[in-house]
This record gives sequence, structure tokens and C-alpha cells, in this order.
Amino acid sequence: MSQPLEYGTPIQLHQAIAVAKAAAEEAQKNGWNMAIAVVDSGGNLVLAHRMDQTQLGSMEVAERKAAAANNFKRPTKMMDEAVTKGGAGMRLLVIPGVLPIEGGELLIKDGKIIGAIGVSGSLSANDVQTALAGVAAL
Amino acid sequence: MSQPLEYGTPIQLHQAIAVAKAAAEEAQKNGWNMAIAVVDSGGNLVLAHRMDQTQLGSMEVAERKAAAANNFKRPTKMMDEAVTKGGAGMRLLVIPGVLPIEGGELLIKDGKIIGAIGVSGSLSANDVQTALAGVAAL
Amino acid sequence: MSQPLEYGTPIQLHQAIAVAKAAAEEAQKNGWNMAIAVVDSGGNLVLAHRMDQTQLGSMEVAERKAAAANNFKRPTKMMDEAVTKGGAGMRLLVIPGVLPIEGGELLIKDGKIIGAIGVSGSLSANDVQTALAGVAAL
Amino acid sequence: MSQPLEYGTPIQLHQAIAVAKAAAEEAQKNGWNMAIAVVDSGGNLVLAHRMDQTQLGSMEVAERKAAAANNFKRPTKMMDEAVTKGGAGMRLLVIPGVLPIEGGELLIKDGKIIGAIGVSGSLSANDVQTALAGVAAL
Repeated sequence: MSQPLEYGTPIQLHQAIAVAKAAAEEAQKNGWNMAIAVVDSGGNLVLAHRMDQTQLGSMEVAERKAAAANNFKRPTKMMDEAVTKGGAGMRLLVIPGVLPIEGGELLIKDGKIIGAIGVSGSLSANDVQTALAGVAAL
Repeated sequence: MSQPLEYGTPIQLHQAIAVAKAAAEEAQKNGWNMAIAVVDSGGNLVLAHRMDQTQLGSMEVAERKAAAANNFKRPTKMMDEAVTKGGAGMRLLVIPGVLPIEGGELLIKDGKIIGAIGVSGSLSANDVQTALAGVAAL
Repeated sequence: MSQPLEYGTPIQLHQAIAVAKAAAEEAQKNGWNMAIAVVDSGGNLVLAHRMDQTQLGSMEVAERKAAAANNFKRPTKMMDEAVTKGGAGMRLLVIPGVLPIEGGELLIKDGKIIGAIGVSGSLSANDVQTALAGVAAL
Repeated sequence: MSQPLEYGTPIQLHQAIAVAKAAAEEAQKNGWNMAIAVVDSGGNLVLAHRMDQTQLGSMEVAERKAAAANNFKRPTKMMDEAVTKGGAGMRLLVIPGVLPIEGGELLIKDGKIIGAIGVSGSLSANDVQTALAGVAAL
């Protein structure tokens, strides 16, 4: 791992809203029901948003994906791949705060982490696509 | 206690957004930083929204006020008053799921509970005023 | 407190069903929506039963009333009165496993505790009346 | 994953009783001691029922199987198979709310999820057979 990114000023609500709006539009365009969460660079929830008929369990999963990405300074996809690979990667299953499922992505502004987005509700690949649409809105 | 209200269809996201928007506007108009949460009639989180510089602890408080109102079919003000009065009311301090602080209000549509809003971040009276602005938007 | 009752053989399911059925009939007769729980003499849940439109939070409250009664070998009314009286009684608010709200009653057979019933959903007095109807069925 | 089912009106108690009764009869017919739980479409417990001599831990397992099925809109068998297969499936071990053991089944009425049943107490295959007997009663 190269030098990790620094934390910057916590994401502002208007930015979190723009991120979540873009993510929600991506989900709707594809007919996916999603739960979307944004945390700030302190790992604290700024915004949560559960689309109608999203599976109920996805709201907490989205929140924890966002927090995991922010609190470990990396997309949850990296944790996901480590577990999927097995062996030493299995250790991640018991690290507190890790959620090894893709769909949690860093929100970066001027080279610093200002928070993260987490998405859950559909196939993992769809969760990621939705989260990245949010990231792109920043 | 008169006959309690019935639970209806869970609040839809577009309704929750309208409720939260009205509440946030009330807060902004008054210069209050607030955390706002909406749950559906199953007590599950639909929306959360924390304004910039809101005290961090208020997000969970808002969520729990909303859930308490929905799950006990009454504004949290009623729980708040019971505890404040003391004596028998003190028992509410330890009922699981009760949050005895005003600022949790029922969201009612066609005479049925479709969810609840919880607001936290300022003086209790301001939390209530903000929550009621949300209720009025339904 | 006189010599406390002994624990006996854990309540059997058919007994728990008879207790809950009598309690539910009492509730229905009065138009009360109630959550009813029965635990055995080990404090473990045997039966739970939530009537339509009961406030959602009452299911856990009923379970904890039943467990509190069984695990402290007394009706929760006694804990309730101690807290309501204030002073030293307030200490009960932080004793683990105590739930100081009436509506948890012991189920006794041949002079021994075989479990307890907990009822929640209406006014405390109604919860007790419903629980006692269950007790009477044993 | 095809388009997921929608949530419908929460299961009513009389329906939950019919489901649990059929499941319990299947268990008794086979001499299995089982814990049976039913949740509504909001993931909230409606009914719990533990047969005599069932291993005590199974009551909570049954409750969590039912909630996992409802909250992720699928039988827990699908989660079970993913973990059993290993690799990427191992990630399910730490998703909050997931219980990757078969025996949690959706309860569907008019094409919508109205809740779920969870069964635990015997071999997994027996848990499933019992749960499906409950499903068939709807």
C-alpha cells in the first residue's frame, strides 16, 4: 500500500446530497432498489436514504460499508477481494469495523478523504456501479 | 389513553423527503443545526440527514426518537413529560425502545401511522418545532 | 421478603399456550392490542404472541417483563412500586434484568415457579389484568 | 438475481398462527423438537413458539433466521449455500442481519412478502422441511 490519503474537512451536507442524488438516479435508471448512506471523514453518518421496496436489511449494510471505507481509507472492494481470496484474507472477517463487501467508496476532494458512500440492495456489482455514480458527482 | 391509532402502509421515500425538507427548512430559517431522521411504520430507517456542524451525537438520538414515536404510537413528548414529572414516570427511563425526550412525532396519513420523524440538535423546544414543521408537510 | 419460592420444572409448551390463550382472550374481550410473552423457569422464551396493531415496541417489553419476573422471583409490579416510590427504589433502574413496569407475573405450579408471563401494549393496569388472566389459566 | 419481490401488508396474527401450527405439526410428526418464529414484513416478531426440550439456543436462531429471510427477501438457504461454497461467499458471515443457515423462508401472499418463518432445533434439512410446512399453510 502506498502512502495512504489524508483525511480532510468533513463532507458538507450539500455535497452529501449531491452524491446521494447521483447514486439514486443511477439506481433508478437501472430499476434497482437501493439503500444509500454517506458518512463524513469522522466516520459519522451524514445522510441515509432507502428507496421504496429496498430489502430492509440493506440500510444498515450501506451505513457500515460507508463507515468501513472511510475508517480504513479504502474502498470496501479491497476488503472484499481479500476475503474472497481466502487464506490470510480471512482475518478481515473479524476486524472490527471492516465490512468486506464491495459497495463502499471513498469520497475525495482536493486529494483528501472527506467521507465515504455505501450502497446496498442489489448484486454487489450493481451496488458498486451505484456508489461510483455518487463518487463521480463530487 | 384513547384507542390508539393503527399502523398503515409504510411511508414512501418521496413522502419522507418532503417531510425532512420541510423540517430542514424550519431549522435553517431559525439558524439551528439539526439531525433529522424518518422511520417507516415498521420502525425501519428510511432517511437520515445531518446538517453541517450539528453535534455528532444527535444523529443517533434523532433516529431513536423517530423509532420510539413509531413503535409506541405517540410523540416522544409524552414520554418526556412522564419522566420529567418523576415518580412513576421514572420507570420509562428503562423501557427498551423508549426515548423520553421530545422531538419524535408521528407521521399520519388517512388516520393511520405511516412512520415517524425524529429531530435532535438544539433545545428540546426547537427540536419539536422542527419536527412539527416536518409533520405539517405530509 | 419471606422465603422466596423455588424454581420447579420448566413450564411446558402446552401450559404456556393455555396461559397465553387466556391472556389473549382477556385482551380481546376488552379491545386491547397486546404483546404476550411466556418464559420458562430458566428465563428462556417459550412463546411470544403479538396481536395485530399492537404497538411494535411492546413485544420486547413483554419478553423482558416475563424474564424479569421469573429471574427475580416476583411480579414486576414490586419493582414498579419501588421505583415509583423513589429514593432507594430508584436503584432498580440500573439493576441488569430488572424491568420495573407492572405486567410481568409469575407462573406457579405446585408451589414452584415454572416460568412467568409478560404483557405489554396498553395502560399498565390493563397489562396486569391481562397477565393475571393468563396466570389464572394454569 | 431476478427482480426481487415487493413487501406487502404485514402478516396478521391469525395467519402467523396457522403457519406456526402447520410447522409445529410437521415437527411433531417427525419427532423433532423445534423453535419456530414468525416476523412480519417490517422484520418485527409476531410469534415465537419453542417446543419442549428444544435446545435453548434455537429460539434466538429461529427469530434471526426469520428476520434475515424477510430483511434480505430470500430464503436463508441461499445465504447458507453461499457460505458453504466458500470463497466470496464467506463474506456473508459478517453482513449484519444475515444468518447463513437454512431454515428461514419467506411468507408470500398475492405475490408479496408479508413476513417470514424461521425454524431451528434439528438438522438443517429438518429445519427447512418444518419451515416449508409452515409456508404451505398460508
